[in-house]
Order: sequence, then structure tokens, then C-alpha cells
Amino acid sequence: MSFTIGKNFRMSVFGESHGKCVGVTVEGVPAGTVINQEKIQEELNRRRPGQSHLTTARNEEDRLEMISGVFRGRANGGPITMLIRNRDTDSLHYGSTRGMPRPGHCDHTAWEKYGEYHDHRGGGFFSGRMTASFVMAGAIAKHILDDRGIHVLAHVICIGDIKVERYVSDSEIEENIHRNPVRCADPVLASEMEALIRKVKEDGDSVGGMIEGRIIGVPPGVGEPLFNSVESVISHYMYSIPAVKGVDFGTGMGCACLKGSENNDPFIIDGNRVVTESNNAGGVLGGITNGMPVVFRVAIKPTPSIALPQKTVNLDTMKECDMEITGRHDPCIAIRAVPVVENLAACGILDLVMTGSR
Amino acid sequence: MSFTIGKNFRMSVFGESHGKCVGVTVEGVPAGTVINQEKIQEELNRRRPGQSHLTTARNEEDRLEMISGVFRGRANGGPITMLIRNRDTDSLHYGSTRGMPRPGHCDHTAWEKYGEYHDHRGGGFFSGRMTASFVMAGAIAKHILDDRGIHVLAHVICIGDIKVERYVSDSEIEENIHRNPVRCADPVLASEMEALIRKVKEDGDSVGGMIEGRIIGVPPGVGEPLFNSVESVISHYMYSIPAVKGVDFGTGMGCACLKGSENNDPFIIDGNRVVTESNNAGGVLGGITNGMPVVFRVAIKPTPSIALPQKTVNLDTMKECDMEITGRHDPCIAIRAVPVVENLAACGILDLVMTGSR
Amino acid sequence: MSFTIGKNFRMSVFGESHGKCVGVTVEGVPAGTVINQEKIQEELNRRRPGQSHLTTARNEEDRLEMISGVFRGRANGGPITMLIRNRDTDSLHYGSTRGMPRPGHCDHTAWEKYGEYHDHRGGGFFSGRMTASFVMAGAIAKHILDDRGIHVLAHVICIGDIKVERYVSDSEIEENIHRNPVRCADPVLASEMEALIRKVKEDGDSVGGMIEGRIIGVPPGVGEPLFNSVESVISHYMYSIPAVKGVDFGTGMGCACLKGSENNDPFIIDGNRVVTESNNAGGVLGGITNGMPVVFRVAIKPTPSIALPQKTVNLDTMKECDMEITGRHDPCIAIRAVPVVENLAACGILDLVMTGSR
Amino acid sequence: MSFTIGKNFRMSVFGESHGKCVGVTVEGVPAGTVINQEKIQEELNRRRPGQSHLTTARNEEDRLEMISGVFRGRANGGPITMLIRNRDTDSLHYGSTRGMPRPGHCDHTAWEKYGEYHDHRGGGFFSGRMTASFVMAGAIAKHILDDRGIHVLAHVICIGDIKVERYVSDSEIEENIHRNPVRCADPVLASEMEALIRKVKEDGDSVGGMIEGRIIGVPPGVGEPLFNSVESVISHYMYSIPAVKGVDFGTGMGCACLKGSENNDPFIIDGNRVVTESNNAGGVLGGITNGMPVVFRVAIKPTPSIALPQKTVNLDTMKECDMEITGRHDPCIAIRAVPVVENLAACGILDLVMTGSR
Repeated sequence: MSFTIGKNFRMSVFGESHGKCVGVTVEGVPAGTVINQEKIQEELNRRRPGQSHLTTARNEEDRLEMISGVFRGRANGGPITMLIRNRDTDSLHYGSTRGMPRPGHCDHTAWEKYGEYHDHRGGGFFSGRMTASFVMAGAIAKHILDDRGIHVLAHVICIGDIKVERYVSDSEIEENIHRNPVRCADPVLASEMEALIRKVKEDGDSVGGMIEGRIIGVPPGVGEPLFNSVESVISHYMYSIPAVKGVDFGTGMGCACLKGSENNDPFIIDGNRVVTESNNAGGVLGGITNGMPVVFRVAIKPTPSIALPQKTVNLDTMKECDMEITGRHDPCIAIRAVPVVENLAACGILDLVMTGSR
Repeated sequence: MSFTIGKNFRMSVFGESHGKCVGVTVEGVPAGTVINQEKIQEELNRRRPGQSHLTTARNEEDRLEMISGVFRGRANGGPITMLIRNRDTDSLHYGSTRGMPRPGHCDHTAWEKYGEYHDHRGGGFFSGRMTASFVMAGAIAKHILDDRGIHVLAHVICIGDIKVERYVSDSEIEENIHRNPVRCADPVLASEMEALIRKVKEDGDSVGGMIEGRIIGVPPGVGEPLFNSVESVISHYMYSIPAVKGVDFGTGMGCACLKGSENNDPFIIDGNRVVTESNNAGGVLGGITNGMPVVFRVAIKPTPSIALPQKTVNLDTMKECDMEITGRHDPCIAIRAVPVVENLAACGILDLVMTGSR
Repeated sequence: MSFTIGKNFRMSVFGESHGKCVGVTVEGVPAGTVINQEKIQEELNRRRPGQSHLTTARNEEDRLEMISGVFRGRANGGPITMLIRNRDTDSLHYGSTRGMPRPGHCDHTAWEKYGEYHDHRGGGFFSGRMTASFVMAGAIAKHILDDRGIHVLAHVICIGDIKVERYVSDSEIEENIHRNPVRCADPVLASEMEALIRKVKEDGDSVGGMIEGRIIGVPPGVGEPLFNSVESVISHYMYSIPAVKGVDFGTGMGCACLKGSENNDPFIIDGNRVVTESNNAGGVLGGITNGMPVVFRVAIKPTPSIALPQKTVNLDTMKECDMEITGRHDPCIAIRAVPVVENLAACGILDLVMTGSR
Repeated sequence: MSFTIGKNFRMSVFGESHGKCVGVTVEGVPAGTVINQEKIQEELNRRRPGQSHLTTARNEEDRLEMISGVFRGRANGGPITMLIRNRDTDSLHYGSTRGMPRPGHCDHTAWEKYGEYHDHRGGGFFSGRMTASFVMAGAIAKHILDDRGIHVLAHVICIGDIKVERYVSDSEIEENIHRNPVRCADPVLASEMEALIRKVKEDGDSVGGMIEGRIIGVPPGVGEPLFNSVESVISHYMYSIPAVKGVDFGTGMGCACLKGSENNDPFIIDGNRVVTESNNAGGVLGGITNGMPVVFRVAIKPTPSIALPQKTVNLDTMKECDMEITGRHDPCIAIRAVPVVENLAACGILDLVMTGSR
């Protein structure tokens, strides 16, 4: 059992959804790194529930508490421990379905693994709320990456059947995703997505989505062949976000349908740098960055908590039965996952970068 | 830099395509485990080049040499080191393109990372030949899994635009993939795929493909929330195979387009077990196995080595130029990757299983 | 940089002496393990300063706060995070010697490593106060070990020139060390040690000491040859306690002077078990436990903070100078290290035991 | 089970005493590092049996075979795998004592851990012969350290009751240890030690010894507080050498008897560097190097294989009995351990140095 990841920039997560707090200890931040608590709070705010009518009604302040590792505003070289307290823990709705696993949820597998000892309230340590720890760690990672000219972007490219099919530029992403609650870089599609989410919510249903991540400015030579390939490491991080069911790079799953002459990226000269004309490789060749943006996509399943009646079983009687889930839930978790993907990808790429480009 | 993976069943890979050998050291095999060298050889033979007219003409015997860890036919509890020698190392073709990175290949990134010291011949340690080490380790893993009633299957489900769209049963996979050179469970589609590969080869081109992996018999409770989720670990392993650009689970990338009511798997009773009616989750909920088959897909890009002329740059003169790649290459590496996916997935799931289901 | 240790029972330490808190996250505690907060508090109390006239006057309540991992009095299977707040942080004395490294202290090396960013107040994360984290983790480890019939003892066997030279039984240790402030199993020598410590304190000096640890009830077969030998792992843990400069096992350093005929432990039969007549091996042969008590000794240097004038250098002027250290300090840290050795050894042996005896 | 150690300079050992080979895979050697096979062979020769009348008669050529990781005389950035074959494997003497554990040997614990599957011949992977892998890895580590101005020395300071009690200089060590078979820097004491070893051999007995290691030129700031202290890491490595029962640093075990005023090392100015007048700390304060030589001692028990009759038990009948061990054995393994301590310490310090001094 380990809630720890990373070799040189390491994060160790703790807490539960309805326990006292959700927190993270970050190791490997060089002594002297400026730790800007306001920036971390800003990232937390982006992930925080209750941001718009499209998210859960749970209202948490998510106020950052920093309890170690910072001295006079800078990293002191030791572990940095941060946490947010849980306050609005409305556990009422959770008692009733105990013993009746909710379809698509971890209730059943948690029971199989931890038995009655699992803190099931609000999903315990399976909760999406755990990702606040990724955001706190990521905010520090992004700061360190910034100093090296590396930037991470994330934006929604698909909600249900509404897809961004044209290329959106980095600046479109940076400018537009803060302007709409679905964090989509295309304003028109953003409105359609918003309408769709409102619709599924009214229907008592939920909907999945897809996020594209871009890591810009990574020098060539980061990552390794085989087990520490950029794809291996970044996908490992991404699949640590609850509800992620697919991760691919560049042409990704679609490369299966392509010919070599279509998928290969021709090398060209840009100033005095070797670059590729296209970026079908998603910035990674042989597991190693080639200097082009690292581009990946993350598929996020529809929220399993839906109001519609569903089939399940009663674990006490071992009979099949119907259930209806009450409580407050995000009709589309993908839109809240955008800052999570962005910050967690920052943690992953920083760990790779700190391991070295040569 | 690390060529090692796994916590409890650990593999450490070494060697190069045109060096002396490709090998692997496996740690964590319990003392007393029967080590059947013939079975390992059989798996090596499945991966070996020169198996059909659809694969490279490189002819290697790939004869297993076991140099430590086995005493009287059984694991002695120490590290098991195995290797295959390289013999048919035709390095002639590799000299000429030095300084001119081949599109889609690691030449450029390897140069960025290792400079002139990289053993570029045949791709060095980036070569697909390195996956023979995964197969040797995996053959041992599969044997241990067998004893626990766990089986891993892999089969081709897509080559170019030819896709297996119906459900193929486990027994169809087991019976059919050995009967055709493309390792497809559907005999009719297999013929079409074969024809397609022959066609792209004639055209001097190559084609991508997709492999589905299934892990059957994993008990519920394997894997962990967050960083050691089954998806995190299996995707980490899969992305260690050169040329893999996409990995997803269950409905995978497609879950972005689904509603919760479509994607949730209803729980039902099967005898005295709790199972799910559908398996959209691919056997994993909350990062933990639920007892259903773990189902994942691996997208493999078209072989970057193609005979058609391509644009690249001359690193000495920093000028753009055209290149033509000669030498012998697989027109579709996906079909040779089937035993690799199967055996490497076995290593990954065994590591998870050894970490415990509770 | 890592403040984490352990493979299966892992602890990750954070905090500083004069920051907000000292804490620890423990991973690997099986779901359902009873977590007795009173027992943990008791262990903290044993280590707490201000226990007798022989220890520093710093007065800390060291009240346990448990912020994750426990649900209804039992481990929930996730990370357990615990901390104690710092209250009586009298930093006054620390300002003055900044720039003048105290002999025998980490001031100089901390400066070399972390520069001005090191939280030097009270030693920052080098402080002996960090060992409170070992005690919190160890209290949980001891509980788990208890259930497996494994017990850890520690007692003072030497302070300055006063040495326990006779064999003291396990029960003498258990009964007597709580009855005297030096934690020595021999009451007569304990009085002499107490007098000696009082004397060096009056002289403005300090004195070193030695602690013997015994781990009783470890089944045969724990540990591994080479890198995970019991000695490798236990010494790694012990040397993580600030001020430890020697660790040996069984006849230890003295084995250099012995002959094989003197040092070998003859095997004999005890009931239906194979045991050894003597225990010169300290319970470990070939890196692996043999079922006899694991016996080791830990040498702890005299507190470097002494009132006597000492030679040092002024880092600003790069001139040699004299210094006198004021502030409150333990004249003999060895006596306070007893619960630390005991609890940290529990963490180490539990990690080895959880890795398995076979 | 793991035969692997190191974070950035990693070694993974394999093989058995009477199997096919003993080998090691080294990861983390920067691409381009010159790999001098003759130097590695020289180190192997220093450890090789049959060097003098004081060592075992087993005659092995110990010829280095390098099977991966080197391209045109330089590290290619991938894993470097090296091995020596076993040839003179006289297993005759080993059959007879099966079932009768030899006192002081790992026979009993190996049986407890691995059962009948352990390759007991010549000690299997518990054999001192495994340390040839440390020497191969260490020869590469020493080369890398050399380039950074770091040098490791090791010399015998005690055999039985003959002790080097005066300070011997670095140059005495370098010059003298190659001139006598006991590797002692003091020629007069070396002769006495030699006579003592000859005497115990004639008596059918064996004798222990102590080795001092010195690491010169380590910059200040290497190592970490707590778990990655220099002492934790170096002792972990040293206790991985079979037969080591004690490891201490600086004043070491003796610090227990000292006062602070005696043990503290005053800081002084040497040119423009801050150094300490004495080196009681053994070059490490707060777990971190202070720029003084890292000085440690390693106690090595007397060879357990002695010709004198000993008490043991018959595991089949569970009766006590007498045994006499025949076969060829070193009467004092400490003298052969000198190059092992030296090379393994090089691996340890290099791993720490690669992790960084800041």
C-alpha cells in the first residue's frame, strides 16, 4: 500500500473525503525555492467544488494550511506538508447505501480490499477530493517548471458527443478556459457543452469528457527508453486520477489506423533547432522528449453517481435490487478535472526533468 | 537511468540490439518455483523475427541461456538471469544514416540524450529486440499466475482500417491466434489484415495496429487507489514497449462520449459471487480489480522504418534533405507485439497480485 | 532528498524543531489494525523533554494529533498521519551563533547543503525532536509486532566509563528501566550513571552513552543475504537517529579479536527447535534471523552543546574565535534515545517481517 | 527479495558460488564514461582466491566478461552487465554436511528461508564469492569518483589481538598494503598478523579482523539528515558484505565513553576552507559530509569454517552431534575483504554524491 509517487520530486498523499483533512507531503523541492502560498491557494480554488451551477453543491473553503518545509517564504530543503481541512462533510446520504454497492463506484472493490474498516463516507480515500493534494503539489511543481521555461496546459476537448475537432492554439487555451465553466478553449463549443451538462443533470444522468494536456518547453532528452519512458510516467500519473479510463499520446489510439508515411513526423530546421513538421509523436520518440510539446489526452468517465434508478445487489442478502442515489454530485467530473490533470502532469514532468535530460 | 521495474516481482533489463546479448534479471520468484526452460523458449519463439513473410528477415535463433537463479529445475530464491545472444547483426545498413535522424525513430532523441556514445546499431537499447527480455520474464510470471488461476490473453483487434468489431470469446482467442500470422482471433479479418500488411509492404510503407489484452481470473481487491491503481501500473508497463502510443481500459477513450447510465456496470449475482452485467470498467473500479476480466487495449504505431522517401535533416550540415531507409523491417510491428503485450502484462499483474489483494 | 524509509511498513517524516510541528505519515498498516492513541501518547511521553532533572528544560506537551488514516479506532488501510505541535520554541538563543558553527553540530554541514534557507532554529529538521516521529510510527509498529509475538527492548548499557558488564535478563530490562531516569536495567549502575551525568552537567560538559537493543520472538528466516540483511536494514534505521556513531550486532566490533572456535555458536536442540547455545551472532546468520534474539548496540555521542568555551570560526570574517553555547540542553542524550531506539527498531524489524520470512 | 541497491548508481547482483557465474548489472553510469576493463580485472585479481598461502586454495581465474552497456570502450548510457564464470567448483565437500548446519554459517537460516531449493553448494548466493560483483561495480564507481577527486582507501587495522594503534597516513596505506598479504599499512604489525593467521590455520581455527575505510575528497554537503545520512547508507552497504558484524564512524562505539569536550571537533581555518582540527566525527555531522575524510571501521568475524570439531545438530534426526568441516577455507577472511570494503564503499559514496551535495 503506497500513496507515494516520484523519484526526485516525490509526493505522498494522505487524508479522506470526510475525515479531518486531505493533505500531501512533497519531497525534493530545492532549498531556497520561493513558495507562494497564494498561487497554491489559487490552484486549489480552481479545483474547489461549488464553483458553478455545473458542479456539486458541497461547499468547502479549501483553505491551504502549510505545516512544514517552509522558512521565511522559501523551501527549507525538507519535506513540505500541506493540507486542507474538511468542513462541509454531509455524510447523511452515505449511510443508507452501505451494503449496496453503487454501480461504477469503488464501493464493491473497497469492501473487497479493506472490508468494514474502509472509511466509506464520501468515498474515503477514493474520493475525487483526494486530488486536491495533487493540486497543492502541482502548484509547487509548476512554479519550479516556470523557472525552467516549461509550462503545462490542460483543456476540455470533448464532453459527450461535442468535440473540439479543430486545432486550438496555446494562447486560445490560456485565454479561454477561465471564461467558461467547462474549461473549453472554443467558446462556441463551450456553450454547447454547458448546455449538454445541464441537460444530463436534469435527466438525472451524467456525462464523460476528455481533456488534452500539453507540456510546452520541455528540452529534448528528458525520459528514458523502456520503463521510464515519458509515456510510462505521465500515464502512470494520469491513471492515478479517479475516473480516468484512457490516456494516449500524439496520434494515440488512432495510430493503429495509420500508415508509417502518415504517422512519421518529418524533421525540419527551425532557426538552428531540429524540430518536426507535424507532432504526431506527441513530443516523445523512443520514450524521450524531442523538444516538441508533449501532447496527451485523458478520458474521464461519466460520474457514476446518477439519480436514475440502477440495478445492484444487496451484499447482506445477496439478492439483486434497484437503487437510487441521492446526494449532491458533479454531473460531469471532467470539467473539474482540468486543473487536476494540469497540476498532476506538472508533478510528473518535473520528476522526469529532475532526473535529467542527459 | 533505470531499466528496472516492479516492486515484488522485479525485472531488470540489459543488452542492446547489436551488442552481445539481450537479457533480464528477475527478482522475487519464490524459491521452489518450477522453471520450465522449454516454456520460456516457446515464448521467445513466438516473438522471434523471421516467423513469417510478414516479419523482418533478420534471423535469430534466440536461444535461451539461463545463467543464475535456478537449481535442479527450480528457482533457488535468488535473482534469475536469462539472456539471448545476438548473432545475425547486420549493422551494414546503420552506418549510412548516422547523422540523419530517421523520422519516427529515436535517432534524434537518443543523440540528444546520449550523444555519440549511444550504440546506435540496430537501435541499441531502444530496439524492439529488447522486448525479448519482457518475454523471458513474462514466461516465468505466467507460470506463477497459472498456479493462481490467472491467465493473460492478447490478440490483434485492428490493423489499419480493418477492425474486429464483434466480441470474440476467450476460447476463440486461444484457438485462433496461433493459426494466422497476424494473431487475430477472427479468421476472416485475419486474412484481410494479412493482405493489407502485404500490400503496405509492397508499397514500401508500414501500418499500425491495436492489441487487446485480457487478464482473466484476477481476484477482487488487487491494486490500490491513486498511484498504484491497476490502470496506472499496467499502462506504465505497456508504455514501456517501444512504439506504443495509446493504452486504455474498458470503454477507454470512448467513455468520454458516454452517459453514466450507459457506462455504469450494473451489479448482479452469479451463483454466490457479485459480478457485473457488463464490463465497461474493464475489471477495475477505484483502481482495484472487481473480479471481472481486466481488459485493456494497446495502440502500436506503424513501423517508422519505411522504404518511401522521407524528409529529414543532416545534423552535420543542419540542412534539410531527403532520405530512403534500406534494410529489413517489419511492415507491421503490432503483430509481433502480441506475445510482448501478453508477457509484459503478466509481469505487471503478477507484481500487483504479489503486493496483495488485501 | 528523502525523509522516507521502508518498503512495506513505510514512514515519511516532516516538520522542524521550531516550525509548526513534527509529524509522520505511516503507510502499510493493514486495514482493521487497532490504533490505540493512548499507547502512542505513552511512547511520546517517554521521549518527551522535561521528564527529569537530567534532561533539557524545554517543556513540550507533545500531544498526539492524528489527522488521517483512522476510522472508528482502526486503521482504514490508507496513510496514517500523526503530528505533535511545537509550542515552547525558545528561539532566542539560536540567533546569536548564526555564522559561528557549533563544534559537533550540524550547523556547518547544514549551511553547506541548504545555505541560508535552512531553518536553523533549534536545529530545524536535524533536531533530535524529529525522533518524535520515529516514536509515533514505532508505537504502531510495536502494536502490530505484539500480535506476532515479537517484542523490542532497549536499555542503557554504558554512560561514560560506567558499563553494564554482566548479562541482564529481559525481565530485568522490562522492570527496571522505568524506575530510573537513565533507563538502565541495573539499579546500582543506574545510580552511578545518574551521578555521572549530574557531574558533567555541573562541569558544563556532556557525556556519551550506549544502548543495547533486543528484538525477541522474530521467527527464523527474516531478512535476506546481501543488501537487505537484517544488519543492513537495522543499522540503516539506527544511523538515522541523530548522534549515533556506532552500530554493531552480537559480538560486534569485538569479533575482530576472536577466533572462529570462540565466535561460532554451537547448534543445540531445545524441545523441538534448533537453537544456538550462545548468541554471538546476535540472532543473524547470513543476513537472516535464526530465531534467537536479534541483539545490537547503538553508540550515541555526547551532546555537542556544552557550556564550556570552544574553538570555532566566524563564517563571515573567516577568522577563528571562541564561543560559549548558552540555552538548555540534555547533558546526555543517550538516556532520552532509549525509546527512540526501541521504537525505530520496531519500525525496521516490522518492515523486514512484512517482507516475509520465506 | 532484492539483490539490488542504490538510487542513482544502482547495482543488481546475481549468481551463485557453484552455479554458472557471479555477475552484476550497474545502472546510472553516464554515457561516455570510459570503461577500463583492465582496471576492473585488476580489482578482481585483488579479491581473487589463491593469492597467497593465507587464502583458500580454490583457484579461479575470475576473468571479466562484459556483456552489455559498453560501446567502443565507453558506457553507452544503458545497464552495464559484467560477470565472472565459476570454474573450480569443488562441490564434493558440501554434500556431506547437508542436514547438519555448520555453526556460524548460513546453512540453518538458508534452510529456514529457502528450504531444499537453496543452492547450498559453496554457500550459493550467500558465498563470499558474491562480493566479486561488488568489486566489478566498485571498479567503475572508483573510476567515476577519481574524476571528481574522491578516493577510497581500505586497510587492515586489527587481526585478533594485533592492532594498529598509531595513526597511519593515507600514503602509508597506499604504499604498504600491496606489499604484504594481510593488507596492513604497518609493515611490522603486518608480519605479526601474518604469523598469527598462519598459527590459527595450523590450529584448525580462524581469526577475525577489522578494516578501516577512508573516503578522501568528498565535498561538504553530501548525504542527508535522518534516513539517508552518510552513516545510514555506508553502513547499509558494509553490512551487505557477508561476515561483517560491526560498522562505526569516527570515534564510533568509543564515543559512548567520551565527554562532549573531548569528542567535539573544533573548527579552524585552513587556507580559505573551514575544516576541523580533529576528525572524531569521521567526516560526518548531522548525516552530511563536512569535507573531512569519511572514516569508518568494519569488523569481520572469524571464518566460521574451522577444522576443529564443533557441536551441531542433525536436522533429520533432530539430535545433537559433533561435526568436522573439511574443504579449503580462508583462515582469515578479513584480509580478502579489503578490496571488497574499498570497492563497495566506492559504490555507496558515489550513489550519495550523485544524489547531490546540495
